[in-house]
Amino acid sequence: MRDFSGDHAWLSLNTATVREQRDLLQIIEACARHEIRAISPWRDQVAVVGLEATAAAIRRHGLKLSGYCRGGMFPADAERRQEMRDDNRRAVDEAAALGAPCLVLVVGGLPHLSRPPSAVSHDIALARSQVEDGIAELLDYARVVRMPLAIEPLHPMYAADRACVNTLAHALDICDRLDAERSGALGVAVDVYHVWWDPDLYAGIRRAGRDRLLAFHVCDWLVPTRDLLLDRGMMGDGVIEIRKIRAAVEAEGFAGFSEVEIFSELDWWARPIDEVLTTCIARHKTAV
Amino acid sequence: MRDFSGDHAWLSLNTATVREQRDLLQIIEACARHEIRAISPWRDQVAVVGLEATAAAIRRHGLKLSGYCRGGMFPADAERRQEMRDDNRRAVDEAAALGAPCLVLVVGGLPHLSRPPSAVSHDIALARSQVEDGIAELLDYARVVRMPLAIEPLHPMYAADRACVNTLAHALDICDRLDAERSGALGVAVDVYHVWWDPDLYAGIRRAGRDRLLAFHVCDWLVPTRDLLLDRGMMGDGVIEIRKIRAAVEAEGFAGFSEVEIFSELDWWARPIDEVLTTCIARHKTAV
Repeated sequence: MRDFSGDHAWLSLNTATVREQRDLLQIIEACARHEIRAISPWRDQVAVVGLEATAAAIRRHGLKLSGYCRGGMFPADAERRQEMRDDNRRAVDEAAALGAPCLVLVVGGLPHLSRPPSAVSHDIALARSQVEDGIAELLDYARVVRMPLAIEPLHPMYAADRACVNTLAHALDICDRLDAERSGALGVAVDVYHVWWDPDLYAGIRRAGRDRLLAFHVCDWLVPTRDLLLDRGMMGDGVIEIRKIRAAVEAEGFAGFSEVEIFSELDWWARPIDEVLTTCIARHKTAV
Repeated sequence: MRDFSGDHAWLSLNTATVREQRDLLQIIEACARHEIRAISPWRDQVAVVGLEATAAAIRRHGLKLSGYCRGGMFPADAERRQEMRDDNRRAVDEAAALGAPCLVLVVGGLPHLSRPPSAVSHDIALARSQVEDGIAELLDYARVVRMPLAIEPLHPMYAADRACVNTLAHALDICDRLDAERSGALGVAVDVYHVWWDPDLYAGIRRAGRDRLLAFHVCDWLVPTRDLLLDRGMMGDGVIEIRKIRAAVEAEGFAGFSEVEIFSELDWWARPIDEVLTTCIARHKTAV
């Protein structure tokens, strides 16, 4: 297991962590100032400042990417299916333009919640089959441009509206069905926030293996959690055994970045960006 | 599958659903008034009005019980282990005194959160082993008084503080290890709120079978959910395929009550008790 205590060479910043403080170009500047080597930007943040300007800023500072957020939201009714396809292909293209190592997929939940105004459906099994069909279709496109797709299983509390793939086992089942040869084109993003509770987590990490482990995200689970979406904790402030999970991921050969991704309307989004980044760096050394 | 559309003969009221409006004796009166045949009371509500008075009121109105809430909170440090044992044995005794068909177990999460002020531990695997040890020990006691124990897997969002058994599969693994002979002494409580998201739900229900299906709880998952604990929805107001899940449970031979359990600080706890019960009855016919 790598020793993170001495520096933050393997810290990546998911740019949603400071999305309320600055635009993406300013976030990139701040990362350079704090000697953060990598980021994972969000599409909406890129859209605000432009893809070209983002790519130029990343090159200028010699930043790496640990991923690109995000494709997905596959469940849709018939009228919105083409929009869904086009949208996801653009996400692949943007990821490629920025030099991302993978496009993270938040797969979507029920169609009317994930891709409104699709017709109302409570059939989660159908949504799951639409997800798998959608990934299969996107994979054909992504293989051509050599952009790996990383399925991110989300916490079950997001099953209805954000992602109906809620366990590592389910994500890996999809990988096995669509990429049995473990080509590297399809894998998973393991975010400790989403999977820490799973009794099959460590078995899942072993099953994933190096071929399937495309990204590793960290933050912490607070008790109490005051908001389902926007109350994620800084590493070390919650209950997740982050280091134990990182050890398991690295035991499989994962040697990439630990990407900090904190949505925190109630705390970290309200603090100055330099304080947030300084804290991320400190906690990367002590709690990741 | 039973037809619930014509009456509410198989509706049970979990008394937490109207806990803010009335004390338990008044809730029992209200159930009688609305011809609700069964309840599942909580220990703290019983404690307020007294066990004898509760038992007498239940007898007087010819009410049945669909369960008793709740034992559990097994993880504890050494100093609190005897307290935990005593507390759980009292819960079994109370369930027996009230004529409950089972004692529902909310097994607890990390010891310092479930059974404070236990020493802080983030070792969820250890908490899980303490849960299993605790159930094994309580089972010896419960067998003597012939009180079945129903492990209730809770939604993964409660893994830290309320229950580190978060899937039906995990609960059934414990059942198989501690009661391999399927004696009826140990089973599960299936609450749609906790398990609806699980891709292995229907396989789990089949695996449980009639022997292990001791209780069936209903409410609904709202989108958005504004509070992790106290924003459960009335059946029909959310996204859960309640009828599909009930069909699966009944296909295994379950023929007991559908117990309505809604914690809703933001909505139903603020309404008059008669409105809540009238709505439960109406939705039992149309959405359960």
